[in-house]
Amino acid sequence: MSTTITTGWTTAEIEISEKVLKKAYERETKTLVKQVQEQVDNLEDVAQLWEIHDLLSSKRYDLDGKYDNREPMLVFTFAQLLKEGWINIEELTGIDKAKLAQISSLARM
Amino acid sequence: MSTTITTGWTTAEIEISEKVLKKAYERETKTLVKQVQEQVDNLEDVAQLWEIHDLLSSKRYDLDGKYDNREPMLVFTFAQLLKEGWINIEELTGIDKAKLAQISSLARM
Repeated sequence: MSTTITTGWTTAEIEISEKVLKKAYERETKTLVKQVQEQVDNLEDVAQLWEIHDLLSSKRYDLDGKYDNREPMLVFTFAQLLKEGWINIEELTGIDKAKLAQISSLARM
Repeated sequence: MSTTITTGWTTAEIEISEKVLKKAYERETKTLVKQVQEQVDNLEDVAQLWEIHDLLSSKRYDLDGKYDNREPMLVFTFAQLLKEGWINIEELTGIDKAKLAQISSLARM
């Protein structure tokens, strides 16, 4: 048998996944809101306002793609979030060990 | 003689125009900065952050086009700024009366 990326997720795993994704999204967007609030408080000219606009354009695009909850993508989604520090591996407790191993490996890549 | 849109601008008129445009741009962008600061202070969720992003996209596009300082466009640029309240007609003192009449007429359209 060759090593393959696991794609089957049980209902219980999906439930855990949705909760973790929701929490991570809240963390990331709260951090973004704080970052924008700080930058906006210290605004001195319109050029800096356009920098905030650029940041928001980029983060919005990033967030739209990153929280991919389709089953075959979940391993990659969690690996990315783990790598960026928006989740920790303990939060995924309850998910099959083989998947967790894949997530951890991908996060180190 | 038929009525035509005046397109010739003297050096003195161009100088006045540049000053007025600069001032109007500062007013409009300062107002935008204040508006964004207020909205960002009262941010409650990420949906409102995307609303601010949409506002900035729209205002940036608007501002890029609006402050058109090409000679044949100046009458239209000033009419638009006058209509929106970013300048008043007295600030254009020194510019030829026929042009001022055109600007006032266009602003009422």
